[in-house]
Amino acid sequence: MMKYVYLFSEGNKDMRNLLGGKGANLAEMTGIGLPVPRGFTVTTEACTKYYEDGKEIAPEIVKEIEEKVDELENITGKKLGDAKNPLLVSVRSGARASMPGMMDTVLNLGMNDEVAKGFSEVTKNPRFVYDSYRRFIQMFADVVMGFPKSSFERLFDKIKEEKKVTYDTELTAEDLMEVVDIYKEEYKKHAGNDFPQEPKVQMMEAIKAVFRSWNNDRAITYRRLNDIPSSWGTAVNVQEMVYGNRGDTSGTGVAFTRNPATGEKALFGEYLMNAQGEDVVAGIRTPQPINTLKETMPECYEEFVRICDILENHYRDMQDMEFTIEDGKLFMLQTRNGKRTAPAALKIAVDLVSEGMLTKEEALLKVEPKQLDQLLHPNFDAESLKAAKVVAKGLAASPGAATGKIYFTAEDVMKAHEAGEKDLLLVRLETSPEDIEGMNLAHGILTIRGGMTSHAAVVARGMGTCCVSGCGELQIDEEKKTVTTKDGKTYHEGDWMSLDGSTGNVYGEQIKTVDPEIVGDFETFMGWADSVRRLKVRTNADNPKDAKVARDFGAEGIGLCRTEHMFFDEERIFNFRRMITAETVEAREEALSKILPYQRDDFEQLFRVMDGYGVTIRFLDPPLHEFLPHTDEEIKPLAESLGMTFEALKARVESLKEFNPMMGHRGCRLAVTYPEIAKMQTRAVIEAAINVNKDGLNVEPEIMIPLVGDTNELKYVKNIVCETADSIIKENKVDLKYSVGTMIEIPRAALTADKIAEDAEFFSFGTNDLTQMTYGFSRDDAGKFLDDYYKRGIFESDPFAKVDQEGVGSLMKIAIEKGKATRPNIKLGICGEHGGDPSTVEFCHEIGLTYVSCSPYRVPLARLAAAQAVVKEKESK
Amino acid sequence: MMKYVYLFSEGNKDMRNLLGGKGANLAEMTGIGLPVPRGFTVTTEACTKYYEDGKEIAPEIVKEIEEKVDELENITGKKLGDAKNPLLVSVRSGARASMPGMMDTVLNLGMNDEVAKGFSEVTKNPRFVYDSYRRFIQMFADVVMGFPKSSFERLFDKIKEEKKVTYDTELTAEDLMEVVDIYKEEYKKHAGNDFPQEPKVQMMEAIKAVFRSWNNDRAITYRRLNDIPSSWGTAVNVQEMVYGNRGDTSGTGVAFTRNPATGEKALFGEYLMNAQGEDVVAGIRTPQPINTLKETMPECYEEFVRICDILENHYRDMQDMEFTIEDGKLFMLQTRNGKRTAPAALKIAVDLVSEGMLTKEEALLKVEPKQLDQLLHPNFDAESLKAAKVVAKGLAASPGAATGKIYFTAEDVMKAHEAGEKDLLLVRLETSPEDIEGMNLAHGILTIRGGMTSHAAVVARGMGTCCVSGCGELQIDEEKKTVTTKDGKTYHEGDWMSLDGSTGNVYGEQIKTVDPEIVGDFETFMGWADSVRRLKVRTNADNPKDAKVARDFGAEGIGLCRTEHMFFDEERIFNFRRMITAETVEAREEALSKILPYQRDDFEQLFRVMDGYGVTIRFLDPPLHEFLPHTDEEIKPLAESLGMTFEALKARVESLKEFNPMMGHRGCRLAVTYPEIAKMQTRAVIEAAINVNKDGLNVEPEIMIPLVGDTNELKYVKNIVCETADSIIKENKVDLKYSVGTMIEIPRAALTADKIAEDAEFFSFGTNDLTQMTYGFSRDDAGKFLDDYYKRGIFESDPFAKVDQEGVGSLMKIAIEKGKATRPNIKLGICGEHGGDPSTVEFCHEIGLTYVSCSPYRVPLARLAAAQAVVKEKESK
Repeated sequence: MMKYVYLFSEGNKDMRNLLGGKGANLAEMTGIGLPVPRGFTVTTEACTKYYEDGKEIAPEIVKEIEEKVDELENITGKKLGDAKNPLLVSVRSGARASMPGMMDTVLNLGMNDEVAKGFSEVTKNPRFVYDSYRRFIQMFADVVMGFPKSSFERLFDKIKEEKKVTYDTELTAEDLMEVVDIYKEEYKKHAGNDFPQEPKVQMMEAIKAVFRSWNNDRAITYRRLNDIPSSWGTAVNVQEMVYGNRGDTSGTGVAFTRNPATGEKALFGEYLMNAQGEDVVAGIRTPQPINTLKETMPECYEEFVRICDILENHYRDMQDMEFTIEDGKLFMLQTRNGKRTAPAALKIAVDLVSEGMLTKEEALLKVEPKQLDQLLHPNFDAESLKAAKVVAKGLAASPGAATGKIYFTAEDVMKAHEAGEKDLLLVRLETSPEDIEGMNLAHGILTIRGGMTSHAAVVARGMGTCCVSGCGELQIDEEKKTVTTKDGKTYHEGDWMSLDGSTGNVYGEQIKTVDPEIVGDFETFMGWADSVRRLKVRTNADNPKDAKVARDFGAEGIGLCRTEHMFFDEERIFNFRRMITAETVEAREEALSKILPYQRDDFEQLFRVMDGYGVTIRFLDPPLHEFLPHTDEEIKPLAESLGMTFEALKARVESLKEFNPMMGHRGCRLAVTYPEIAKMQTRAVIEAAINVNKDGLNVEPEIMIPLVGDTNELKYVKNIVCETADSIIKENKVDLKYSVGTMIEIPRAALTADKIAEDAEFFSFGTNDLTQMTYGFSRDDAGKFLDDYYKRGIFESDPFAKVDQEGVGSLMKIAIEKGKATRPNIKLGICGEHGGDPSTVEFCHEIGLTYVSCSPYRVPLARLAAAQAVVKEKESK
Repeated sequence: MMKYVYLFSEGNKDMRNLLGGKGANLAEMTGIGLPVPRGFTVTTEACTKYYEDGKEIAPEIVKEIEEKVDELENITGKKLGDAKNPLLVSVRSGARASMPGMMDTVLNLGMNDEVAKGFSEVTKNPRFVYDSYRRFIQMFADVVMGFPKSSFERLFDKIKEEKKVTYDTELTAEDLMEVVDIYKEEYKKHAGNDFPQEPKVQMMEAIKAVFRSWNNDRAITYRRLNDIPSSWGTAVNVQEMVYGNRGDTSGTGVAFTRNPATGEKALFGEYLMNAQGEDVVAGIRTPQPINTLKETMPECYEEFVRICDILENHYRDMQDMEFTIEDGKLFMLQTRNGKRTAPAALKIAVDLVSEGMLTKEEALLKVEPKQLDQLLHPNFDAESLKAAKVVAKGLAASPGAATGKIYFTAEDVMKAHEAGEKDLLLVRLETSPEDIEGMNLAHGILTIRGGMTSHAAVVARGMGTCCVSGCGELQIDEEKKTVTTKDGKTYHEGDWMSLDGSTGNVYGEQIKTVDPEIVGDFETFMGWADSVRRLKVRTNADNPKDAKVARDFGAEGIGLCRTEHMFFDEERIFNFRRMITAETVEAREEALSKILPYQRDDFEQLFRVMDGYGVTIRFLDPPLHEFLPHTDEEIKPLAESLGMTFEALKARVESLKEFNPMMGHRGCRLAVTYPEIAKMQTRAVIEAAINVNKDGLNVEPEIMIPLVGDTNELKYVKNIVCETADSIIKENKVDLKYSVGTMIEIPRAALTADKIAEDAEFFSFGTNDLTQMTYGFSRDDAGKFLDDYYKRGIFESDPFAKVDQEGVGSLMKIAIEKGKATRPNIKLGICGEHGGDPSTVEFCHEIGLTYVSCSPYRVPLARLAAAQAVVKEKESK
């Protein structure tokens, strides 16, 4: 028979999956003899079964809980509902992974009229008892019944006002009895019946409430953001109450064994006397720093320090603990590995190694790869931020903080820049490739439309620029150059705003920013990562500046150079548009010949920056209409400068419009229709390589043909590339190696990878497009409905942020297997946005890729994730 | 060692792959002792090697050809280039599959100045010799050198004029010598050097020319239209000349053993005395019917009739033959199974069975499934068509012929219909679902944009209405209601035009149409097909009319009922739009409740028509913006009638716009966001089924959830469907079985079919979308660049017309394998447009589908193709 309930004495820390983190650690602390109030844990499997059974606790589980209550009563010598010697308990959630504050807790359960009365007599402390009772009613009403918290809070405030007190501790026992009566009335008003007096009923309802809270909105969102599967469920911990609100020698607090902000090795925390846990958080009274406990209760303090030591050594990591002091006696209510900032994580990891507590490989697992981002971008000054008000919230599309004056077109940003303005934000409905220069000058980008992989988001991440995208709650008027918040406040061109690309927060004011501090531990730590990892890490970069940043961050080559971004310079775009509008091959070639020198120069610079490493250049990919203006106002002057009639240019623009441009005339399909573009690009790449090699470099360019779905497409384009390249090499009488490969971004390419590998010397998984096609999701449109998917539990994570291993991943595996069957040593990489996601990096390691390529600011993250993949692999063996 | 050249005496009819059809049959005829001029065949493998070797004939093949020439000289006792006894030959293409007129032929090869002179003396027939010489020069110049044919023709006409003769036979030997001289001069003018006198040089050049012709534009197009792989290559037949132009007892002709138009069992053909093959086709003189040969050359005729009998019995099929009579002696130059019209094919197949020549199963292979189309649609009256002029050409999107007055909006068509107009054509830039009523009333549809699977094409095929789509060479002015041809002729509303949906031709005038004749053989033949096939054939139908047509054509149920088409009725669309613009669930439900009675009634009617068969109803699929107007002019009145402000409605329309609607908010994604739609549709289906079952029918509705990519999507929607359905069934106290399944149209659905099959009781492959996603091709946009793919030999066929077995097919196989692993008896169907393509039907049979579903007018085709699949399968075992 399945066992669904464990006494703390029956468990240990390795039973985290079953007991949840809190439950496993309570059991572990009990096991090693620390002072832990006694209790039991209802398992995560009971939670899963609760959902399977249509949100009912199965009778056999109810029975098991009741049995454990009996045992707990025996152990504690107290009894639920006993007026003289009542067992009162807390009911707390506790999932496998820590989800702080996401789920629900009920304290003081078991309290009722009779218990309150009897217990007051026994304890001779009616003030404490009725304080506990009123807390219980309020929590039960809120957490279990879902009644509005505010209605109780309002009543409490009213009483305090009537009694003319500031703090709750100033209320007398009589006051609190009055509160309990008022609360019970209020409860009845909402519920339609009396507050339940039967403790077992209270308990079952509370357990169910905790189970339910696993699927509340904020828990779902938290799980999605933290990659926690909804299938895990939460455990429920039922634990004998100890009282921090029992008087002036009682109290409650939280503490970390090291400073979670800096990593400094010193106890860090705070406590509040005569209070229960939630008071510390609620901030009604100001808690005291933990070290003051040394003076107020020196014995308690000493014991606490001793326990901290035991726990840190036991768990071999910085601990985050909750404790309660009841009448001078210390109890531990929780311990867990503490959350920490990135600098703290690095310092702690490095310190724990030098303290001999961890091996280097173990230490690598102590830093979340995603955290490294914090080290690479400017942040808001914490003090200035406190005073600032969030006026809107969008998607956290590219991390960092930016403050500046807002401008509504890329041109206006450029003008302001030329006029000497320094802090600039670009605000757009959505960005397009034409905005690239303005985006480059802006310190932050805010878009109203578009998701995490919209143009703005992708480009901003590539640039390391802060970006908040898809901020649909702002109303933009691009003509008037204003944005208006939901509250009706309007911001005009030149007004100050601030963006937090790590949270999606938008502020309507200037906020001071601070540059990132990279402490020495960072380098040490990354060195360990590099010595362990097997996956290479490249970067996606289109220009020398980005390439340099990435190389400084440890990139080992370029995995994706998108050549189209190079066409948007003012001088180039004109010739590129001439090319698009040309009516003959000759006219196209003529226009292309004007672009050639620029492209060649771009490539030369990239080659120089990446000397010693591979550079993969992707040929022109986006549909041509992206390069043309679309409004009559823009078309008119362009037609004039191109020497065309307005009608002719307008007709050309119209003819390039597509119903579904994502699946339209782009990628290698362009090279099929206009081989002369591929020829020009080949010439630029090969000539650039020849030029830099003359200077003593040793570049072997990698030419990548995008959007291949059929072997014949690749054969056709490769043939053009090779004919062009070979004849240039021959003309120049040099020896130059180059390779030609393809993106695997069309499902059919994966399915026919054996044939494609006949011609492709390397594969690079373009998982953005592969995800789009595999799901049939347009990434620009999916944002609109994916929210419904998260809400309804259909999806747990954004497939554009984290590779879908089941579907997209199975295509990747098919492609690898088939590709290797044809070409055993084929080089395999990934260059989609996913390349910078830790779980995807781990997956790429597992399926045997050669490298991942990501935006420059994600290179350190990928290096660490790649190292962690190795460590985890070893651990699982 | 590879053998690349075979004497006719070395081959037989089973060597078609190697020798081509013509070569294999020449060898076969030689083998069974028929009078065939001697010769040899250069194999298709030589052609493939020619291309592999960079368009060069490898030295070993040149040598082998020369050896065979020697052998041929020995056998014939003639010698290439021998002035007294010259070997003259024809050089003809001959691919595996017959490609009439697509590739090149050179006759009289071996002729030169010396041979002409000597041969004239020997034959004492200089007229014949110089006639042959001038023909040779002209063909060589045209076929081998690619000089303009017209320049030679012009010179020949000039001579005839000078000599004042009408027919070429009236020219004397001296005249023809003059022609030869003039031709040689003309040749030199083009070539820059003299006409080649060396016969072996002539021969190698001619062979290369034939190889090259395999890849001329018309051959590529022909192959694509007829599913012939480009990898096959063509063989080359080099054959001793026999001369139909040797005088009045010589001649040449073509004949069929049965009438290829009607199938009547009677020799059918024509011949021309004193002529070479091309004259019969060229139409300079009028050929004589074959039966007149009985009088002019009775012995020849008798022998020919005898040979016809032998050949038909030998090949067990109607033969199409070429023959030449040289000085009263009959020679056979070719035999092959004759092309024939659909009625002829049916009659011949049925006759050959009753004559005991074929089994029924063999007879099933004698009719091309695609041909059956001809029997099901109106056609132009042949006489009227002769006089008509093609003014534009689009895509042959839906077969049949239509003539009528043109109207430019669906509304105008409806008005004209109400006004009593009978013959109506709808001309649109492109159609949208709102046009559905007008499309239904129109006899033919012409669109300027859109491909073979555009809305217009798909809907028209479904309706059996003639449609020409993507006719980009016409300029449309929808405001002025005109179309203008390339030649500048403009047609206004109400003008007559005619459309041929089987060729894509557009005519600028009224052309008489005739209704199809369905002869009794059709029924007999289809009966055989039904008794053999294993695949069921269903139809895609949204209304009782189509369903009835399909059932009359033999459909065994509905595989796809698209419910969205039902929303476009005037009364319904209003409520549907109210639903879309509703801001609360309640308002949406209110609007949906207005649509419910209509939907229920639709389903009832469908169930009644399809009584006894399954009906699969697909829930709402297209993005909602397709149901809303997009121009301000249309939005204004709608806003008014919806009681909304113009701005609010406009904002709603805008908010529904998508970048890539094909991959946007549609299919089951709509049901996730708006479960109330799925509830309403479920209610309509279930109540309809209950109602008709009360009348004694036994309907088990099949509810199909579209666009599923993840098992959780299906689980979520299925749950809504089942809850709704079960409660209705319970309320009504009836017993009703229904099933819930899904489309497999998203690659990820195929890849995770094992999980999806946990909930899906059936799969229906939506190969339109599956092809789009697998290739990353938007079907609405791909037309623009796929032409380049065909031209450059990258694609051989349209993946939207014929399932790509390699890529899309491999996903289908994965889905079937995984689906069956979970649910061994899962019902499997296909409901994409491909369901009506014969090669796809065969593939569906092979991979084990339960049924195919296609538009009503393709049902007979699918029945036959399904039967052929069984016969072919047996044969290949």
